[in-house]
Amino acid sequence: MTVLSSYVRGNWHTPDGDGAAVYDAVTGDEIARLSTAGIDMAAVLDYGRQVGGPALRALTFHQRAALLKALASYLREHREELYALSARTGATKGDSMFDVDGGFGVLFSYASKGRRELPSGTVLLDGPTEPLGKGGTFLGQHIWTPLRGVAVQINAFNFPVWGPLEKFAPAFLAGVPSVVKPASPTAYVTHRLVELIVASGLLPAGSIQLITGRAGDLLDHLTEQDLVGFTGSASTARKLRTHPAIVAAGVRFTGEADSLNCSILGPDAVPGTPEFDLFVKSLTTEMTVKAGQKCTAIRRAIVPESLLDAVGEAASARLAKVVVGNPADPSVRMGALAGLEQREDVRRSLKALLDVSTVVFGDPDHVDVVGADTDRGAFMSPILLRATSDRAEPHEVEAFGPISTLIGYSSLEDAIALAARGKGSLVGSLITHDPAVAREVVLGLAPWHGRLLVLDRDDAGESTGHGSPLPALVHGGPGRAGGGEEMGGLRGVQHHMQRTAVQASPDMLTAVTGRWTTGAHRIQTGTHPFRKSLAQLQIGDTVVAGPRTVTIEDIDHFADFTGDTFYAHTDEQAAAANPFFDGRVAHGYLVVSFAAGLFVDPAPGPVLANYGLDNLRFLTPTYPGDELTVTLTAKAITPRDGDYGEVRWDADLTKQDGTSVAKYDVLTMVAKQWPLPTEPEGTTP
Amino acid sequence: MTVLSSYVRGNWHTPDGDGAAVYDAVTGDEIARLSTAGIDMAAVLDYGRQVGGPALRALTFHQRAALLKALASYLREHREELYALSARTGATKGDSMFDVDGGFGVLFSYASKGRRELPSGTVLLDGPTEPLGKGGTFLGQHIWTPLRGVAVQINAFNFPVWGPLEKFAPAFLAGVPSVVKPASPTAYVTHRLVELIVASGLLPAGSIQLITGRAGDLLDHLTEQDLVGFTGSASTARKLRTHPAIVAAGVRFTGEADSLNCSILGPDAVPGTPEFDLFVKSLTTEMTVKAGQKCTAIRRAIVPESLLDAVGEAASARLAKVVVGNPADPSVRMGALAGLEQREDVRRSLKALLDVSTVVFGDPDHVDVVGADTDRGAFMSPILLRATSDRAEPHEVEAFGPISTLIGYSSLEDAIALAARGKGSLVGSLITHDPAVAREVVLGLAPWHGRLLVLDRDDAGESTGHGSPLPALVHGGPGRAGGGEEMGGLRGVQHHMQRTAVQASPDMLTAVTGRWTTGAHRIQTGTHPFRKSLAQLQIGDTVVAGPRTVTIEDIDHFADFTGDTFYAHTDEQAAAANPFFDGRVAHGYLVVSFAAGLFVDPAPGPVLANYGLDNLRFLTPTYPGDELTVTLTAKAITPRDGDYGEVRWDADLTKQDGTSVAKYDVLTMVAKQWPLPTEPEGTTP
Repeated sequence: MTVLSSYVRGNWHTPDGDGAAVYDAVTGDEIARLSTAGIDMAAVLDYGRQVGGPALRALTFHQRAALLKALASYLREHREELYALSARTGATKGDSMFDVDGGFGVLFSYASKGRRELPSGTVLLDGPTEPLGKGGTFLGQHIWTPLRGVAVQINAFNFPVWGPLEKFAPAFLAGVPSVVKPASPTAYVTHRLVELIVASGLLPAGSIQLITGRAGDLLDHLTEQDLVGFTGSASTARKLRTHPAIVAAGVRFTGEADSLNCSILGPDAVPGTPEFDLFVKSLTTEMTVKAGQKCTAIRRAIVPESLLDAVGEAASARLAKVVVGNPADPSVRMGALAGLEQREDVRRSLKALLDVSTVVFGDPDHVDVVGADTDRGAFMSPILLRATSDRAEPHEVEAFGPISTLIGYSSLEDAIALAARGKGSLVGSLITHDPAVAREVVLGLAPWHGRLLVLDRDDAGESTGHGSPLPALVHGGPGRAGGGEEMGGLRGVQHHMQRTAVQASPDMLTAVTGRWTTGAHRIQTGTHPFRKSLAQLQIGDTVVAGPRTVTIEDIDHFADFTGDTFYAHTDEQAAAANPFFDGRVAHGYLVVSFAAGLFVDPAPGPVLANYGLDNLRFLTPTYPGDELTVTLTAKAITPRDGDYGEVRWDADLTKQDGTSVAKYDVLTMVAKQWPLPTEPEGTTP
Repeated sequence: MTVLSSYVRGNWHTPDGDGAAVYDAVTGDEIARLSTAGIDMAAVLDYGRQVGGPALRALTFHQRAALLKALASYLREHREELYALSARTGATKGDSMFDVDGGFGVLFSYASKGRRELPSGTVLLDGPTEPLGKGGTFLGQHIWTPLRGVAVQINAFNFPVWGPLEKFAPAFLAGVPSVVKPASPTAYVTHRLVELIVASGLLPAGSIQLITGRAGDLLDHLTEQDLVGFTGSASTARKLRTHPAIVAAGVRFTGEADSLNCSILGPDAVPGTPEFDLFVKSLTTEMTVKAGQKCTAIRRAIVPESLLDAVGEAASARLAKVVVGNPADPSVRMGALAGLEQREDVRRSLKALLDVSTVVFGDPDHVDVVGADTDRGAFMSPILLRATSDRAEPHEVEAFGPISTLIGYSSLEDAIALAARGKGSLVGSLITHDPAVAREVVLGLAPWHGRLLVLDRDDAGESTGHGSPLPALVHGGPGRAGGGEEMGGLRGVQHHMQRTAVQASPDMLTAVTGRWTTGAHRIQTGTHPFRKSLAQLQIGDTVVAGPRTVTIEDIDHFADFTGDTFYAHTDEQAAAANPFFDGRVAHGYLVVSFAAGLFVDPAPGPVLANYGLDNLRFLTPTYPGDELTVTLTAKAITPRDGDYGEVRWDADLTKQDGTSVAKYDVLTMVAKQWPLPTEPEGTTP
């Protein structure tokens, strides 16, 4: 039997020795052997730091995002191979898609967010510039820069494709190299995934390494800038969190642990409502997808006491239709657990639960299967329990399989308190169509949860369900769930970066961030900046235009023309009675229109379109006779694929005494070169 | 001698027993005794959770902010008492102001940020709404809600006022009760601070408790929703971080540990430049303020090798003028260390440093003092060292007193590498007037630092200096510095809250967040929403107005009137050649002006002024003949002190086929009641 290789220091390492066997979850046959004998773990980390980190940091966010997209497309071409291997873990086709396509979805999502939400360079700003002195010469700006270490990613067995990819994508986008350590029972799937990634040839050397088997002394060699991301049991999370090297070096540790996730049925969702049916369907689906081996699965179904029987009956009717067996058989709805060991674990936990509950559905010791041998495959019946006492077990004992417990509640307050007895969960859901119930329960549950789903007839059609973490939303929860956060869009990228408050003068902040900062030097070359292509334009390029006097006739005319006859513009006496004005004032829309009339360079040129305005604030009223001058300065330049890019301009509209009438950002599309190539590659803004 | 009381469970607890003595740093006299004997620590935590938490959560962010402001004003009235006690810790008047007024500054800053940057309710949103389905019926929104536990705040001895307040203010604003545990040597100052806070009668019961003395088994009783904030030595931080209860319950732990902060002199900053002088002044100031007992002090002065002598001489000349002695003497520039024990610690560390460096200034064993007895007071000379070898000590051994080491560098790369040998610092500084040096060094240092100061002739006048953490900026650093973050404006508030991704329909999200969400129900009552005062207006109140046809004459006229004759509006052929347009298009400013003409209700009424626009995006060009309709919906309502509040409106400008031409937020000031009271209380927007 093959001993699987590891991908370390840019090469596939064939291990010494025989290794430990891994078995097919359905047939019990040996699939592969795992060993990391002979790997120098310290050298693996050093290779990531010395080769992978610099290579990634040499790329911009947009370049990294483009590589993620290319990688996702490449992997998608090879997904059938991964489905086939995934079936050996006990997964149905649907389960495999959840894992495999879900993983690609994370890559695509990060590729898209990287292009849309990250700047074109390598420095990410955090929050606005903070004025630190009255004179404007001393400012603060928080920035994010990539950590200089390695992200060690220790994955769970239940998602051998999605798991590694949801950790890898944000690390890669941040500019931090990954060392992937899959869980043994399904490591052969992750092994193939990484083989495909390496074969793609897309990624810079050192940006990903794979440890197929035991981690050995890997963690002993962690240093201050490394990170550890762990998904698995709460007890292992605790052990890793207190690992001496992690503690000594203050290594950033993210734990994502199994939790006793709840789903709450609202009091309005009685039988006959769409919400009652949604609850039952969601519960039984979560019990059976991946044979319940999801850290997000519903373990506690918290329902009004009066509806316990009804929910039990409806859920049992659905569970009775679930065909268990070999995932290769098309009639099968639920496959095997990941292995016989895992099934033993589940049965042990189930035993503890049975002391404080009765069985509503299923036989803990027996299941009929299709197309497989129950002695060799890790099959199990879905089991729905009903708690019979107030004891802690239903809130604390996780049976990591197709098992949930019904628990009755007497009031919303009681339901919230029961949910909190889980001591922290990855996810909870509430099925209700009553907005008041939603507000009370969501705000009561939120401190205990990383994610909350409110499901009703309105969102059910598009809902991705209780159990699905999404790349745009945080995944992770407080307390028992490990206290970590993963994904969440850019939040997961920032997790791999250091936030630093930089204090400096406007010129120095501009130099550090690559973004023009109020108070910094302005460049006036004599050429109007609208005549400069993206290649020619510099941060700080400025046009000052004006003055233009605003007359009472202008205000009258604008009111008449636009129909905006608001009294502050048209009625001297009423305007003067307004606490903000001394008399008739010019429309805000009028003054920004005049400003554009001043700063625009009208002839065809590289500036193609104004696509928006941001953060417009009217700071001082404009009265008849005021003279307006506008100063427009190139603030941020973001090249895009194709022929154009975005330029953000700082606009400061002042009047004769120098006070600002309005400040805002003007957003334009600017050609990379002018004139445009005759056949533009074309993206639209 | 009095044994100091603790403030627990709403009462001053007088401890049993004699307690441990605390001594005056200047005279060596016993000041007080500390004991926590007889305090039920589990009950302290429970009181915070059961009484303090609910009381705080019953207040809005703005109410909590107002209390912080009132508290700061109250404390400022009593500052002389705190200065007097502070002098007994060895602090000069300047040192005391740094601590005492700095602490009040944090309260004022959080009061201000709470009013300006937090919403009026109790739920804080995080980031934009994420569309999770194409149909717009399923959305995600991250929210922050306060943790339901207690913030245990373990402070260091060096800032007995600022230290507790910088931890308390963000916790209070978040809605989380505090348990304050001062360090023994200066606990009598914090004790008086909390006496004043309690005497103010301003804060809800349970929002602050004080443990004056040993924490006993306090940490053993921590549970999942509690937090621990620690400032002190790296070794204690490690011990606390691995405390069994903290690990078992996944308690959020923030460590802020002493670090080997560096200050780098840029290669351009040669003698004769303002930057050279700034560097020397900053270095000597940081060495002597608080007798160097600042976790942010400069421990490593990294300078070009060629300037080592010049810096050593200039710094020595300044240090020679520093008068050491009794802070009561007005000539004294540097007081005592916090106590004889602290001085012993410093001397021990100094010994290790002397093995690898020479003394440039100062006598490790002797100092001349003014107005005090060197045998009884913890005095020490400032000591400037110069590293003589490449050994690790100067980068790893912290002498927590008036001691710094000069280290030479050969290139910027070398300087960055030397800085990184500190393995993570709270703060670093760079003194340069060269923007290219600033960019290279700041981006090289950033991953290792929580804060970086770039000092030059431009910002020196307003700079708050290397050693001053500011409430608007994060305080904390990676690796050796503890890996925590404190303050940083709202970031420190969020640290006390749980971030939860809520997935729901637009209506349910609106109910949960109190903010109108695109796709949610709109309310059309027949009354124009501009006729409703803040008291009458509801989230979702909507006016739909239009259509208005945009004609070619309108475009010509607007171009002529405003002067915005950009070719896309005026030249059919050139416009059609633009990749974004099919022919002449209406100005963006024109269509939003027409929109205002449609939605405005012109007569005097509760809507007083338009103070801005946010997030305006032009989504589709408007061509001559297009008919515009605008839908304006009340999105967020923020009452303010005085007679008005802010209303944010969602504006959606569509054309005849229903596509959106522009989307944006309109910001208005609206009266709380209409008509306005005749003598408005008045705030301006």
